[in-house]
Amino acid sequence: MATRIGKFTVKLDSAPSVLSYGAVASKKESQGPMAPYIDLLCDDPYFGQKTWELAESRMQETVLRAALEKAGLSAGDLSYVFAGDLLNQCIGSHYGLREFGIPFVGLYGACSTMAEGLGLAAMMVEGGLAERTAAVTSSHFCAAERQFRFPLAYGGQRPPTSQWTATGAGGVILGKGDSPPFVRAVTFGCIEDMGVKDISNMGGAMAPAAAQTLSRFFSDTLTGESSYDMILTGDLGSVGSSLFLQLMEQDGYKLRKKHSDCGTMLYDIKTQGVDAGGSGCGCSAVVLCSYILQSMREGKLGDVLFIGTGALMSTVSTQQGQSIPAVAHLVHLSPTAGLRF
Amino acid sequence: MATRIGKFTVKLDSAPSVLSYGAVASKKESQGPMAPYIDLLCDDPYFGQKTWELAESRMQETVLRAALEKAGLSAGDLSYVFAGDLLNQCIGSHYGLREFGIPFVGLYGACSTMAEGLGLAAMMVEGGLAERTAAVTSSHFCAAERQFRFPLAYGGQRPPTSQWTATGAGGVILGKGDSPPFVRAVTFGCIEDMGVKDISNMGGAMAPAAAQTLSRFFSDTLTGESSYDMILTGDLGSVGSSLFLQLMEQDGYKLRKKHSDCGTMLYDIKTQGVDAGGSGCGCSAVVLCSYILQSMREGKLGDVLFIGTGALMSTVSTQQGQSIPAVAHLVHLSPTAGLRF
Repeated sequence: MATRIGKFTVKLDSAPSVLSYGAVASKKESQGPMAPYIDLLCDDPYFGQKTWELAESRMQETVLRAALEKAGLSAGDLSYVFAGDLLNQCIGSHYGLREFGIPFVGLYGACSTMAEGLGLAAMMVEGGLAERTAAVTSSHFCAAERQFRFPLAYGGQRPPTSQWTATGAGGVILGKGDSPPFVRAVTFGCIEDMGVKDISNMGGAMAPAAAQTLSRFFSDTLTGESSYDMILTGDLGSVGSSLFLQLMEQDGYKLRKKHSDCGTMLYDIKTQGVDAGGSGCGCSAVVLCSYILQSMREGKLGDVLFIGTGALMSTVSTQQGQSIPAVAHLVHLSPTAGLRF
Repeated sequence: MATRIGKFTVKLDSAPSVLSYGAVASKKESQGPMAPYIDLLCDDPYFGQKTWELAESRMQETVLRAALEKAGLSAGDLSYVFAGDLLNQCIGSHYGLREFGIPFVGLYGACSTMAEGLGLAAMMVEGGLAERTAAVTSSHFCAAERQFRFPLAYGGQRPPTSQWTATGAGGVILGKGDSPPFVRAVTFGCIEDMGVKDISNMGGAMAPAAAQTLSRFFSDTLTGESSYDMILTGDLGSVGSSLFLQLMEQDGYKLRKKHSDCGTMLYDIKTQGVDAGGSGCGCSAVVLCSYILQSMREGKLGDVLFIGTGALMSTVSTQQGQSIPAVAHLVHLSPTAGLRF
């Protein structure tokens, strides 16, 4: 049975297991430090499809098939798939997952989608509401650029605070089991809006949400940074990460030695021209579903607090002069299941 | 404890209670048959805001405040709010709910969002993962027209299969309790794509998804139409409803006497010029959170199967020649809690 701890955290006493996972990415990611851990790296940004949007769908389809295959499961073994992406009306997920025949629960959490889906998928197993669940998400650099920013051909200048939308997808399958890692707790965040309006500084807009959610988790669980081996934010990038560490220090937590950020892990930010780092739903999904979960499974990495971060504006809200609301969702992953109930 | 029944249905043995609900809508809805049951009808399509998008946000804020107030609850009493809408990146929800400080779980289910959110909100209470939860959604005619279709000023012709996006929002609060109605079961649907490409016939695209989900629910629960007082689809409209009834008849179910559709209930479709009926996330949300829940609470309506229906395309997927994937989620609402476990 789940236990609510404090005001914002739910402890998953049965500790659902990560039964399987998969990640795919494209050319730029294949030149970054995560490459050796990613299941499939495809140089063709179209993934054999006619459009970038269908390429993104194809990535979601591919990671779910890969994760199912690795676990020796078929689509019919899953009670629900939780999925979403950045594209308008989440077409990456809808066209990518329509062939599976798995009950589909659509999400929108911007770049926090991997953590949101992972949290929900684990909670459903914990609550006896599902047998096995999956969480899938993706992003595609070209599809996102076309939708959110200048046409690529325009060659617009990128300020140094800007981030590079990852081309990639990740997926996780959860269920009862003894295969590490395990999901031990979930803290869903509230929407935080500190008034940031610069859409080229999404890390800055999201950092306060990440700090709020992590502080609440620490306070709910009566723990601090020393209880965890890694505190892994989604895609704050280098600029947002600095701000996040500063905000946490104001709350009395010194995270510098424990903190990593998927946005600064997916690429070599010094040489790959991604400015402040990677972003997009696919960024944290790929890092989580490759290096992180593999290291945990192999016993090389201990307890991880995975904090997905999302900026919740649209081009319309930006054009109307609105600030950027943000959200951060935390999932506690552990190599051990703890004392199960 | 929840019980999985058959392959697709989860029975909520603790039968979470609808503690409260609220609905708001605008001028056209105030001239329709649901008007007497709606909490707030505002003639100003801007709801006092500067833009249609902020008006939509204001509606979400208003229904959640109304529902909280009616239940004597404050925002801090809710563990989670599940919300989403039709606008790109779901800005209706993000700007509407950012002030509440409630952990926010973002959804995208197109016009199925009310059923999706209601189902998830009930499952979280059932599984002991949350104390009280809310589900909120909305749509706005002008914001949707601007995003999806011709500029209003263009005066484009609407074919008779087209539907009218409702301007309105609805919200429900769930928790353990003895106040009827109760949520007894949930069946989340799979994505169904029968190849329909006509975006002016969304009812036709969604009808197969609704039929699939309902047939699965009947088959999982070993029940049929005679066990329920109303089978209420979200927004199939008159065209989609005919197709839905036909498809169900092919499966051996005669629903004509039991079936209603929120899309044909919100407006007087003979006189209000809405062609095949209402649509948009707000359509089924307003009908459910006014007439339906009130009638159930007052003992005037028995068991209802509420089947939210969503068309999952975007303008980009349509322009790229793709067909329309659809999904339908079913929630069984009952005036009695049954035998609770």
